[in-house]
Amino acid sequence: MKRILTGIQATGIPHLGNILGAIKPALRLAAEPDTECFFFIADLHALTTVRDAATLKQNTYNTAVAWLANGLDVDKVLFYRQSDVPQVAELSWYLNCLAPYPMLANAHAFKDKSGRLADVNAGLFDYPVLMAADILLYDAQWVPMGKDQTQHLEMTRDIAQAFNNCYGRTFVLPELRMAERLMRIPGTDGKKMSKSYGNYIDIFLPEAQLRKQIMGIVTDSRPLEAPKEPDTVFTLYELLASPEQTAAMRQNYRAGNYGYGQAKQALFELILERFKSERKRFDYYCKRPDEVESLLAQGAAKVRARADKKLKAVRKKMGFTR
Amino acid sequence: MKRILTGIQATGIPHLGNILGAIKPALRLAAEPDTECFFFIADLHALTTVRDAATLKQNTYNTAVAWLANGLDVDKVLFYRQSDVPQVAELSWYLNCLAPYPMLANAHAFKDKSGRLADVNAGLFDYPVLMAADILLYDAQWVPMGKDQTQHLEMTRDIAQAFNNCYGRTFVLPELRMAERLMRIPGTDGKKMSKSYGNYIDIFLPEAQLRKQIMGIVTDSRPLEAPKEPDTVFTLYELLASPEQTAAMRQNYRAGNYGYGQAKQALFELILERFKSERKRFDYYCKRPDEVESLLAQGAAKVRARADKKLKAVRKKMGFTR
Repeated sequence: MKRILTGIQATGIPHLGNILGAIKPALRLAAEPDTECFFFIADLHALTTVRDAATLKQNTYNTAVAWLANGLDVDKVLFYRQSDVPQVAELSWYLNCLAPYPMLANAHAFKDKSGRLADVNAGLFDYPVLMAADILLYDAQWVPMGKDQTQHLEMTRDIAQAFNNCYGRTFVLPELRMAERLMRIPGTDGKKMSKSYGNYIDIFLPEAQLRKQIMGIVTDSRPLEAPKEPDTVFTLYELLASPEQTAAMRQNYRAGNYGYGQAKQALFELILERFKSERKRFDYYCKRPDEVESLLAQGAAKVRARADKKLKAVRKKMGFTR
Repeated sequence: MKRILTGIQATGIPHLGNILGAIKPALRLAAEPDTECFFFIADLHALTTVRDAATLKQNTYNTAVAWLANGLDVDKVLFYRQSDVPQVAELSWYLNCLAPYPMLANAHAFKDKSGRLADVNAGLFDYPVLMAADILLYDAQWVPMGKDQTQHLEMTRDIAQAFNNCYGRTFVLPELRMAERLMRIPGTDGKKMSKSYGNYIDIFLPEAQLRKQIMGIVTDSRPLEAPKEPDTVFTLYELLASPEQTAAMRQNYRAGNYGYGQAKQALFELILERFKSERKRFDYYCKRPDEVESLLAQGAAKVRARADKKLKAVRKKMGFTR
């Protein structure tokens, strides 16, 4: 049995890039036998950049709905909001006292953020310690992450090791599990699909709006008759299509007399088909906020019991009475 | 009604300097009408320098016993261990996200400690934010502190103001209340009495050991016959004696034919007399750890209810559901 933990950034409704690159792989992992998965919406981490209650709430809610819409099964996955388990903040303080200041001050992600952002707060600095608390609180063994996060996992291991050396074996040292394959999903302008570039496709939009996003994909100006090279439309189509569908599309591109408008229409129809149940579930949960709330609350209750037990053992080792 | 909050460093059994300089003034404040006092043992802050469970436990316990021995009335004062109210760690994370990194990195106390200590951990850096959480969680209005702590209180006010600006009026801006008089209590070598100098007098010692400490006070080598100048022995005597007793001692010093040994014996007897009930209560509580534990647990339960209520309001303003 492998215990797997993933924090989900709550930046609003996940786009096609997030779904293919993060949500679907995570859910495939959760479907593997002998795994126990902790998937949480990292709303405490979100506070380092979001300072508006309505935005925080909406982003968290939209994120939850999108994961449920993509088929997350709350009976299989421990799915919760980070802020519903305040034990993680308590552990975070304990770990703070074992985390070397220079390690955090020199972390790549912090240096990058503190160079870019106007508001450099102590939460940004302390971000990796809260992340370590998230991981160590549940003895997570595998943490699926992108390559840019490897330093965060190293810090978690360092802090866990420091605690174990100081107070005796307490924490499991987690291992990185690299994302199953590194997919580069292009946005409507051909660059990497990203919320911040505004080049994303939101598969949960009503049909007309979704179609408009897809029709907006930037293409070159070859005339209808000309044969065409695989482009952004083709790449997105290939990511979603069966091998047969892809082969047929490739043939259309090569043959000429096939316009980008037709290719976009085909992509639009494929998205509707591939994400039919996701779109249905999305509408279902959007209309039932109480049900979403209740699912998250149930997840949190299960996780809190585990957190309490672990934290009690941690406190005892540190010399606390409670 | 003034709400007053003081954090007590848990560094072991408080010595005479701590008692006269901190404990007694705090208890006099608590005895004033229309005050509500929160006195807590700062064992979470202690983690920034103590990494040994037995030491942490013993220091916390000894500190609690010493305050009770000095007459702290748990019906009048909310007396608790910081670690028993984990809500403060949760609030600390929220405040982290509003505390500017440069403000903390440039704080006097942090710069001083990071220059002196081999282990500069993130807890030392984040120390003032946890302190702000301690204060703001209970809407404390007055925070009695020494002059060296004024920057910490300024930071608390800045963080509270930032929160209020961002999320609407939530926190009370606390005010500094300077210690009632700045007493310099000399140690046995004439320097400021301090645990780290090893020059302290522990009034709770068994008589023979206490007498030995007092006899060890450094004096000059004037012969018995010579008149004497007020020295360390005299200063300590004066701090504890009635005006009449002090006048008589001054007379002895002036007249000569009065040896330092005699003065020390008088100081020893005065300490026994002045701290008779403190010493008795100290022995009482030392023999009853369960009673001490129960008093602390009762204090924590009262305070936790207050913390829960405040934190709920804070979370709501920030956009959390729980």
